[in-house]
Amino acid sequence: MTTPSDPILLTPGPLTTSARTKEAMLRDWGSWDSDFNQITGRLREQILRIVHGEATHECVPLQGSGTFSVEAAIGTLVPRDGHVLVPINGAYCQRIAKICGYLNRRLSTYEYTESEQIRAADIDRLLKEDPSITHVALVHCETGTGVLNPLDEIAQVVARHGRGLIIDAMSSFGAIEIDARTTPFDALIAASGKCLEGVPGMGFVIARRTVLEQCAGNSHSLAMDLYDQWVYMRKTTQWRFTPPTHVVVALDTALQQYWEEGGLAARGGRYARNCQALIDGMAELGLNTFLDHAVQAPIIVTFHAPDDPNYDFKTFYQEVKRRGYIIYPGKLTQIETFRIGCIGHFGEAGIPGAVAAIREALTSMGVQLGRTATVA
Amino acid sequence: MTTPSDPILLTPGPLTTSARTKEAMLRDWGSWDSDFNQITGRLREQILRIVHGEATHECVPLQGSGTFSVEAAIGTLVPRDGHVLVPINGAYCQRIAKICGYLNRRLSTYEYTESEQIRAADIDRLLKEDPSITHVALVHCETGTGVLNPLDEIAQVVARHGRGLIIDAMSSFGAIEIDARTTPFDALIAASGKCLEGVPGMGFVIARRTVLEQCAGNSHSLAMDLYDQWVYMRKTTQWRFTPPTHVVVALDTALQQYWEEGGLAARGGRYARNCQALIDGMAELGLNTFLDHAVQAPIIVTFHAPDDPNYDFKTFYQEVKRRGYIIYPGKLTQIETFRIGCIGHFGEAGIPGAVAAIREALTSMGVQLGRTATVA
Ligand SMILES: Cc1ncc(COP(=O)(O)O)c(C=O)c1O
Ligand SMILES: Cc1ncc(COP(=O)(O)O)c(C=O)c1O
Repeated sequence: MTTPSDPILLTPGPLTTSARTKEAMLRDWGSWDSDFNQITGRLREQILRIVHGEATHECVPLQGSGTFSVEAAIGTLVPRDGHVLVPINGAYCQRIAKICGYLNRRLSTYEYTESEQIRAADIDRLLKEDPSITHVALVHCETGTGVLNPLDEIAQVVARHGRGLIIDAMSSFGAIEIDARTTPFDALIAASGKCLEGVPGMGFVIARRTVLEQCAGNSHSLAMDLYDQWVYMRKTTQWRFTPPTHVVVALDTALQQYWEEGGLAARGGRYARNCQALIDGMAELGLNTFLDHAVQAPIIVTFHAPDDPNYDFKTFYQEVKRRGYIIYPGKLTQIETFRIGCIGHFGEAGIPGAVAAIREALTSMGVQLGRTATVA
Repeated sequence: MTTPSDPILLTPGPLTTSARTKEAMLRDWGSWDSDFNQITGRLREQILRIVHGEATHECVPLQGSGTFSVEAAIGTLVPRDGHVLVPINGAYCQRIAKICGYLNRRLSTYEYTESEQIRAADIDRLLKEDPSITHVALVHCETGTGVLNPLDEIAQVVARHGRGLIIDAMSSFGAIEIDARTTPFDALIAASGKCLEGVPGMGFVIARRTVLEQCAGNSHSLAMDLYDQWVYMRKTTQWRFTPPTHVVVALDTALQQYWEEGGLAARGGRYARNCQALIDGMAELGLNTFLDHAVQAPIIVTFHAPDDPNYDFKTFYQEVKRRGYIIYPGKLTQIETFRIGCIGHFGEAGIPGAVAAIREALTSMGVQLGRTATVA
């Protein structure tokens, strides 16, 4: 078989973007120029619109990967004497805890297994028990496994206790509904190269205006001071430091396609169909999901590796890649797994094609295929 | 006259890149994939080669704009109880001082006027007077005005005193010779979108290996911890957090063109010719440089605004832009100036074309053109 030169990325960012999005990068823009800064402005507006936050929130974009924006949000919104509760059910929750350590913010964690959802009742109890907690930092879709956490329930609890909620919605924003009018939060973080189907290189924080206004002087970092970025951008329409111009215009073009597709409902619907097709197709090969269906987000799926002496991930990866698809290793330490993303710009043929490639790859490795139940 | 759709950027980053560099972004890459990580690897090697640092230094790339890498270098290399001397002759020196403030690193500054070079003799005296100073942070080409600071002389002084030197070479790297074998430094910072003619979105720090090895635990930030980034990259060949994949491959392609052009000598030579043609052409219009020729770097030139009631920068900018060129405002508070960059991928016609556009723009505004001496 021929090797496609441009494999489909079944990895949740970087992901496969449309030709139109990439072609938007075929031009250079001056970062001081008003044409470019109009793009920045409309991008910020559109991002707010996705969560219906126009009346209450501000979108502050930031250079760098998504983690830079997560750290910026913690550093800017949590005062130096703040206290952050991080419920943990995966790698990205753990990363937020690590950030709190670097930033010398007082930290409490509450641990779940990686196949469990975080529970609102636990947050309720923990906040009741410890009034010194000022903020809860929650990962919406824990991309390490694919668990969807019950954001709205938790947001109601945090609001009832009068604490601040910071949401890492990196891998869910734009595909899973979040409504700022009914789900209260102080900050929500996402990035260009995930469900908005832009290219990676910038993140953004959607921060409650009345909160952000109080954040002068909190930040541990000049480059990641969201308050300073916001004030400067409001005054000048420009980014404080050189923006990743090509990434910005690619995101702008990706957003046009987002609305053309039908916005969140259509995008989320497409990913849900991808996810179902993937889980069904893999079940046919005897490959089961790590998570229970009830807690699975339609973003990325963790599969148990085949229980076969002929299987090893490196070979599997290469054999699948030769057939035109890039997949992800698992992020679990105890159990051998791999992950497949459901997001990105590829047609309805993408997932069936990937399943076929996986079938061929395993067969070529001499791995026995079976038929078993979908849920382990 | 017709409006060119893609104006030439005479701004020192973002700048005009070649079509080939931009076309490298027409593909998506998995950040876990070995094909991509080979690109990261060869990019790091090539950057080291430019300063002949292969034997002594390490190149650590970082997501974000150049300022992120400057802050990362200060935060990672200067211990918490370090003391940084920042000689100041412009806006980017001032930014380093501001970063030291955010990072709670003890700071001493020494101020010059913006038309002066920093003097090695002053650094010598200041280091003699204050043995508590652990590091000197120097801007090589102060892009705020265009002054070239005497890097090698200062590096010798700093080394003689046994202190560490951190160089912000953002706008000079790749065009003005810096040789790690003879000019000692602990860290040198630059970025993708300057003289290497890539697109903006990542920076890099060239750090002395024996110094970097001692830097665990210094950083104030997870995202900007260069030690952690380096250790992880060495172990896995991957970036810790999602790299700006398209920016990375664009820089890789830009570096191929850099060597094809003839490396630093050719690149620097082209910029020097651009700079001379610009200064000569503008002198013909009676527009004089702010700086003395002896301290002018061939990167960006600050010009005095015409002393004419019909002149205002906003109109001038638009009139020049209509004719296909994007210029920069001045960064001086006291004197009315504007700036024009000499760097980027545009042919020999670029500068004469810009001068002609400026002539037309000023004429259309009713500004009187004269002939005066080149240096004010
Ligand atoms: C939930 C979540 N948080 C944070 C990140 C970190 O983003 P980045 O790799 O862009 O720094 C990711 C990346 O996939 C993520 O899925
Ligand atoms: C000397 C110098 N330092 C730092 C910077 C900051 O870089 P950035 O705008 O990419 O953050 C620049 C940008 O032009 C520069 O010229």
